[in-house]
Amino acid sequence: MKIPAILALACLAVTPPIAHAKVVTRSVEYTHDGVVLEGYLAYDDATAGKRPGVLVVHQWLGLTDNERMRAQMLAELGYVAFAVDVYGKGVRPASAAEAPQQAGKYYGDRALFRARLAAGLAQLKANSLVDPARCAAIGYCFGGGGVLELARAGADLAGVVSFHGSLDTPLPAVAGAVKAKVLVCHGAVDPYVKPEAVHGFLEEMEAAKVDYQFIMYSGAVHAFTQKAAGDDPAKGAAYDADADRRSWRHMQDFFAEIFR
Amino acid sequence: MKIPAILALACLAVTPPIAHAKVVTRSVEYTHDGVVLEGYLAYDDATAGKRPGVLVVHQWLGLTDNERMRAQMLAELGYVAFAVDVYGKGVRPASAAEAPQQAGKYYGDRALFRARLAAGLAQLKANSLVDPARCAAIGYCFGGGGVLELARAGADLAGVVSFHGSLDTPLPAVAGAVKAKVLVCHGAVDPYVKPEAVHGFLEEMEAAKVDYQFIMYSGAVHAFTQKAAGDDPAKGAAYDADADRRSWRHMQDFFAEIFR
Repeated sequence: MKIPAILALACLAVTPPIAHAKVVTRSVEYTHDGVVLEGYLAYDDATAGKRPGVLVVHQWLGLTDNERMRAQMLAELGYVAFAVDVYGKGVRPASAAEAPQQAGKYYGDRALFRARLAAGLAQLKANSLVDPARCAAIGYCFGGGGVLELARAGADLAGVVSFHGSLDTPLPAVAGAVKAKVLVCHGAVDPYVKPEAVHGFLEEMEAAKVDYQFIMYSGAVHAFTQKAAGDDPAKGAAYDADADRRSWRHMQDFFAEIFR
Repeated sequence: MKIPAILALACLAVTPPIAHAKVVTRSVEYTHDGVVLEGYLAYDDATAGKRPGVLVVHQWLGLTDNERMRAQMLAELGYVAFAVDVYGKGVRPASAAEAPQQAGKYYGDRALFRARLAAGLAQLKANSLVDPARCAAIGYCFGGGGVLELARAGADLAGVVSFHGSLDTPLPAVAGAVKAKVLVCHGAVDPYVKPEAVHGFLEEMEAAKVDYQFIMYSGAVHAFTQKAAGDDPAKGAAYDADADRRSWRHMQDFFAEIFR
C-alpha cells in the first residue's frame, strides 16, 4: 500500500488532476531538545483545503511500516497524518527483545514522553494543510499509552484513540485539565493490560471528568491490530481481524464526532 | 415522531409513490401459551423487498412510547421493527414502584422470559417483509437483559444489542450454543449494573466463546437512552445525550456488519 512520494509526484506530473485520492507520503526530519527525529507524513494531494490532522504514535519497536500504513489509510480518509518518531532517527529496536529498553526510557520519564510527543504534534500543526484547531492523535501499544499521556498533559487535541495501549500512569489526569475526548479500543483478554489496569483507568477518567468511551473486543489479546503479531492468541499478542476492522470503524465514528 | 398507521395509509392513498421513507406503524396482537400480547410494528412502506428485522424489547414499564419511537427510528433506517410485549396486553406498570413486580416475574423465571421473547421473534419472522435469516434484537434495561437471554438460549439471531441492560443470569451461556453476535452498550457508572456484574458478564461471554463487543460510556448511569429518566445522574438513572447518540451509532455499525 505504500506509495513512495517520488512516484506519487511523478504520477501527478503526467496525469491530469483526478477527483479520487492521491496519497503523497514522505519522511520528515524534525528535532526535539536537540535530538533529531524522523517522522512520516501522508496526505491526499487531490485537494488543497485545510483539513483535520491526525498524529500516529508507534508501538515499542518505533516507527515501522505499520504506522506508515495507518498514516496512508488516514490520508485516504481525508486527513493529514503524521507518524511521529519518539525514539530518534535511526533508533529502531530490531526485535521485541530490544524494545523494552527504549520503551522503558519513556515509560520511566513521562515528562520526556509527553514533551517528545508534543514536538510531533507541533510538527503536524505547522503543516499548512492542517487545521490546527481540529487535530487528534492515535497510538498503538506503547503509542496508545502515549496518546493518553498527551491527553492527560492537556494537549490541545480534539480527541485521542488508543489501540491496545497501556493504561496506567504515574501522573493521572486532573479534573478539568484534559481537553481531548478519549476512545480506548481494548482487547478484552489482553494479558499485558489486565482487568485491574482497566478498572484503575476507568476510575482515573471518571474522577477527572474526562469524556471517554472504552470498548472491549471479545477474544482479542495485545497487539490485535498488528498482522506481524501472528495469529496465536495463546502467545498474548496476536492479530484479530474482527477487532482490527471494528476498532478502525469506531475510530472513524469518533472522528466524525470530534471533527464535525 | 409517531405517525399513526391510519394517517400514513391515508397519505399513501392520495400521494404518488415517493422514494423517501414512509413509515407505517400499527399495534399487533399475538399470543404466547394462551396469553394475549400486544406488540407494535413499524416498517417503511416505500419499498416492497424483504429486509432485516429487528426486535425491540421494552424496559421494566412494558411497551411504551419509548419503544414505539425506537421501532420507528429503525423503520426509517430500512428495517422491519417489532416492539414485543413481554407482560401481556394492558399490563403496563404505571410507575417505577409497580414495575419490579412485573419485571421480577420474568427475571425469576428465565425460561418463561426466553419463551415469551421467542414468541415475539416468531411474530417478527412471520412478517412477509422480513428476511428471517437476517434478524436482530435490541433491548433497554430489563429488555437489554432480555435480548441477552435470547442470545444465551441460542435464538436464531444475527445479533443482539443491549442498552443499559442487566447482565447477570442464573443460566449462563454455554460454549457453542450462542449464535448471535453481541453488542453491549453500558453506562460506565451505572449503579444498578455494577463493575462486578460487568466482570462476571465478560467472563461468561469469554468462557462461552461468544463474539461480543462491550462499550462503556463515560459518566453515563442507568437508562441513559431514556429522556423520561431526567437529567440528574445522581439519581442513578438519567438521560445522557452523548451516550444515547453514540450507542445508536454503534448499533448501526453492528447492524452494518451482521446484515451485510
